[in-house]
Amino acid sequence: MQKVMATKGKEEKGGMRVVVGVAGVVLAASFLFMRGPLHETPAPEAPDDPCCAFPCENQGVCMTLPNKTYSCDCTDTGHYGDDCEIPTWISWVTKSLKPDPETIHNLITSNWLLWAVVNRIPFLHSRLMTYVYISRGDMVDSPPTYESDHHYITLDAYFNESYYGRALPPIPAHCPTPMGVVGHKELPDVDELIKKVFLRREFIPEPHDTNLMFQYYAQHFTHQFFRTDYKKGPHITKGQGGVDVSNIYGLNEQDRRALRSWENGKLKTQEINGEEFPPYLKDVPAISMDYPPNVPIPETGKFALGHPFFALLPGLFAYATIWMREHNRVCGELQKTHPDWDDERLYQTARLIITGEVIKITIEDYVQHLSQYKLRLTFEPQLTHGTRFQYHNRIHAEFNHLYHWHPLVPDGIKVNNTNYAIMDMAFNTQPIFKHGLDEFIHAMVNSRAGALTSRNHAHSLHPVLKKVIENGRLLRFQGLNAYRRRFAMRPFTSFLDLTGDPDLAADLEGLYGDIEAVEFYVGLVTERPGPSITPLTMVNTGGPWSVKGLLANPICSPRYWKPSTFGGEEGFQIIKTASLEKLFCANMKSGCKNISFKVPPGTP
Amino acid sequence: MQKVMATKGKEEKGGMRVVVGVAGVVLAASFLFMRGPLHETPAPEAPDDPCCAFPCENQGVCMTLPNKTYSCDCTDTGHYGDDCEIPTWISWVTKSLKPDPETIHNLITSNWLLWAVVNRIPFLHSRLMTYVYISRGDMVDSPPTYESDHHYITLDAYFNESYYGRALPPIPAHCPTPMGVVGHKELPDVDELIKKVFLRREFIPEPHDTNLMFQYYAQHFTHQFFRTDYKKGPHITKGQGGVDVSNIYGLNEQDRRALRSWENGKLKTQEINGEEFPPYLKDVPAISMDYPPNVPIPETGKFALGHPFFALLPGLFAYATIWMREHNRVCGELQKTHPDWDDERLYQTARLIITGEVIKITIEDYVQHLSQYKLRLTFEPQLTHGTRFQYHNRIHAEFNHLYHWHPLVPDGIKVNNTNYAIMDMAFNTQPIFKHGLDEFIHAMVNSRAGALTSRNHAHSLHPVLKKVIENGRLLRFQGLNAYRRRFAMRPFTSFLDLTGDPDLAADLEGLYGDIEAVEFYVGLVTERPGPSITPLTMVNTGGPWSVKGLLANPICSPRYWKPSTFGGEEGFQIIKTASLEKLFCANMKSGCKNISFKVPPGTP
Repeated sequence: MQKVMATKGKEEKGGMRVVVGVAGVVLAASFLFMRGPLHETPAPEAPDDPCCAFPCENQGVCMTLPNKTYSCDCTDTGHYGDDCEIPTWISWVTKSLKPDPETIHNLITSNWLLWAVVNRIPFLHSRLMTYVYISRGDMVDSPPTYESDHHYITLDAYFNESYYGRALPPIPAHCPTPMGVVGHKELPDVDELIKKVFLRREFIPEPHDTNLMFQYYAQHFTHQFFRTDYKKGPHITKGQGGVDVSNIYGLNEQDRRALRSWENGKLKTQEINGEEFPPYLKDVPAISMDYPPNVPIPETGKFALGHPFFALLPGLFAYATIWMREHNRVCGELQKTHPDWDDERLYQTARLIITGEVIKITIEDYVQHLSQYKLRLTFEPQLTHGTRFQYHNRIHAEFNHLYHWHPLVPDGIKVNNTNYAIMDMAFNTQPIFKHGLDEFIHAMVNSRAGALTSRNHAHSLHPVLKKVIENGRLLRFQGLNAYRRRFAMRPFTSFLDLTGDPDLAADLEGLYGDIEAVEFYVGLVTERPGPSITPLTMVNTGGPWSVKGLLANPICSPRYWKPSTFGGEEGFQIIKTASLEKLFCANMKSGCKNISFKVPPGTP
Repeated sequence: MQKVMATKGKEEKGGMRVVVGVAGVVLAASFLFMRGPLHETPAPEAPDDPCCAFPCENQGVCMTLPNKTYSCDCTDTGHYGDDCEIPTWISWVTKSLKPDPETIHNLITSNWLLWAVVNRIPFLHSRLMTYVYISRGDMVDSPPTYESDHHYITLDAYFNESYYGRALPPIPAHCPTPMGVVGHKELPDVDELIKKVFLRREFIPEPHDTNLMFQYYAQHFTHQFFRTDYKKGPHITKGQGGVDVSNIYGLNEQDRRALRSWENGKLKTQEINGEEFPPYLKDVPAISMDYPPNVPIPETGKFALGHPFFALLPGLFAYATIWMREHNRVCGELQKTHPDWDDERLYQTARLIITGEVIKITIEDYVQHLSQYKLRLTFEPQLTHGTRFQYHNRIHAEFNHLYHWHPLVPDGIKVNNTNYAIMDMAFNTQPIFKHGLDEFIHAMVNSRAGALTSRNHAHSLHPVLKKVIENGRLLRFQGLNAYRRRFAMRPFTSFLDLTGDPDLAADLEGLYGDIEAVEFYVGLVTERPGPSITPLTMVNTGGPWSVKGLLANPICSPRYWKPSTFGGEEGFQIIKTASLEKLFCANMKSGCKNISFKVPPGTP
């Protein structure tokens, strides 16, 4: 199993790489850009490590051996041979019978007539949903295997929950090029890359009529688990690994207690213009929010929310307000059935119901729109019961990285005939109070998001994008094709194969030289558009992390998923009938119209 | 599904019960007894909650409803009816065919001829081991459902990992009696209980020839995950949920770094009398150990170990020393195959191998002896792959509570013709350096442990036992019979049925009045002796937590359990061939003799 290669077979010098960075935020508020010391210890003599070429196929594990040799561990890969390149008989049959992921994707996103039939046959539909849950779950290593400080398995990848997980280990720092052995000695200049590949020429609207309700949902939802600890680096998180609704209630017990009213289970609110809103920050001193110290904001413009970052944009504030109202509404419903329950039990049970609502809406409204599947996606956790599905999740660094969807952000938004540029809205809830929350929500509904593709990135977000790319380099992510292989997709063979656009392909080829050297994020965004809101590689890598994160929630597990957990059948039904439309319509004052992740038909 | 009862159906007043305590330690060193405020808010009017009678059978969940009613949630119990008392047809068949756990236990612990045959038929043996793993795993709710601050499911039971889990929720504080509705208004006086039921009359040796190697192994092994945060209360842990080898390496990165030599992956050592020992505490200032401030101990009697508590007894120090030597020995072995590896990779990989050795020895030597199974227990993690087994674990408060095995402790130990009383050995490593480590180890091998039964508790450990019982009351554990039902055993019908001893039964009846009111720990220890080292209920409740904790370790999961994780086939073989005997024989200076969890044949 050993192969001799012209290498010295020396390992990198240890020492924890304290990678440091920022970003992940939509607006590049400068105060967020905290820096720390970066001490990557360079190897004393750069060794020629044969594993730098990633010779093991089919997820075999490469191990460097003395005398310029390596071996591939093919355990459980369904393959054997020096490089795990030969399929076992059963793997060969499976591979031969199974259609390519792109073919499957095209099938699920078209043929509406076929799916209209399948969606109506409960037995068949259940079987398909079970397959979706299990096959997506299987793509995610659970327990997690890698973190960003080592290019091999350590016990800390599991026990140190401050780490984001890694689907693929980092490229060893001692390799000949930043991408291993392929590509140039230096990665392309970030500013040049952004200019050539990312910056918006003119606004490209999202071709599936996606609106800003969708964009802000993505942001509000994902920030409950993307909680990078910027002071420690882009590989470290303060979060808890999944849908913990900490974006609504707060991340720790101190914050959660501060946001409670301590009456009837409800959250603290205040009335402004006859409507319920979150309390002012000055009234909840235990909470700290990310308001910039150097920007003057009146005390009546600062609010205490479950997530410090949600001060940033009025769209996030709108979602925060609606969820706060929904929690209090659910408490009222619970009290009807349980007039004897105390504040604590109402609060805790409402929080469980809200968790269920979040998952239900995320799968059936959000992911349904995101994927553009014609298969009707349903939230049926019981389908995973008794299977090998693991009810535990770790957020992966690549998932966080991938979820920088800033091309969705338009250059501005029109609320009630007033135009706001993005930068006008930073740390500014004024548009909501000037026009009213309902008006602002309808503006989100009626405004088109941008297409998630190359050359559609708002200029004002340049600093955020730069940080994303820099962080990807600090974390030494393997290239796009490595992730394509990891998630069972065929690697791209050329820049034109990747982009489908000769001009963009030429630019990328000039920058990277080799298709195998294209960075993960750059490849994700420059991939040719597909039938979903994101290009295919993003669907097929993000999809498993997303499904896994949603279904691995404790409330989906057999002992939780029953009426008594949610205060009885009434509470259970709140989850089972939740939808985006109901969420908003039950909590808007003046009535709701066209609530959806798409602009209404006829919108210009 | 609702039943009317003469109750007011009021919930307890919320507010976090900050339960507080101590103990869990073998010796009641007074400095460990820290106290905090105890504020259990009493209900404003004590309600008659029908759920206090635990009416739901077969793990149905009771929910109080208004107007003195309740309902049982029978989801997934295989039963229906108002109290989940009627089995479904398939449950009835399964129940009828499945022998009683006591019958199974008697079968596995006797009939050596049958098992001698079965143990030699690989196919059959594998099937049985798979059954042991999966059926034990199924008994543990994973993800965890309850914690000690609420008597219903909350999101915190999962997301707040500071909580020990709970297999059964606490008895609500508003119930008419401490045990629900049964038993006296007050639980028995602890001192009287200890005197009548626990204190040693005369030393009863363990009837299966168990020695002190076993007792100290139990203590050394379990303290890696029993890490109660006494300042916060007996329901809170600082630990990480399983076999994280933190008892060898330290619980956090700071401690782990302090204990490393930073050369060739090895741990810091020092030479004393020509042998390798852990460093003095004075030489590792970052480590803090639980040495009592009020007892004078010379600087050469204080050592820096992975667990602050292991300063307590020379038996723990002996195990700590042997594991430290084993880590360094494994580093040496790894270096032979990987002369190019740096300190970091050698350290991390050796730590993974040590984790495997710990699990292997715990299953194949320790649990094998503990259970007295004639079925040969084997560590074969691949048997769980692809099944519903969950590779994640939470330590349960009941497991911690149950594992107070102080009756094993004799009144003293004889080392090389010197007698040491227990209290002579507290915080005193002198016996090891006076007689030599090897001599001390042989003394542990040759000394009989006490029987784990009633009236065999060393007098000097009275304060520890008292704290255990008090903590059980603070945590409001349900009674022994509730746990018998939870773990599929038939409840005891009388005190004689429990103890098998008319005298002890009479004493217990006087103290508790009702067999249903017997406290968990008291029942565990007073149960009639069975074929294993512990009585049956302890085997059948502790067994699932133990098996689950060992097999749910990340190294047992499909992506970890392969040669490359452990530095290749050589490292994998170190795990696969590990044994207690090899561990000691490879790391003792003058040679080893009779290394085992039993005293040698012929020992008086």
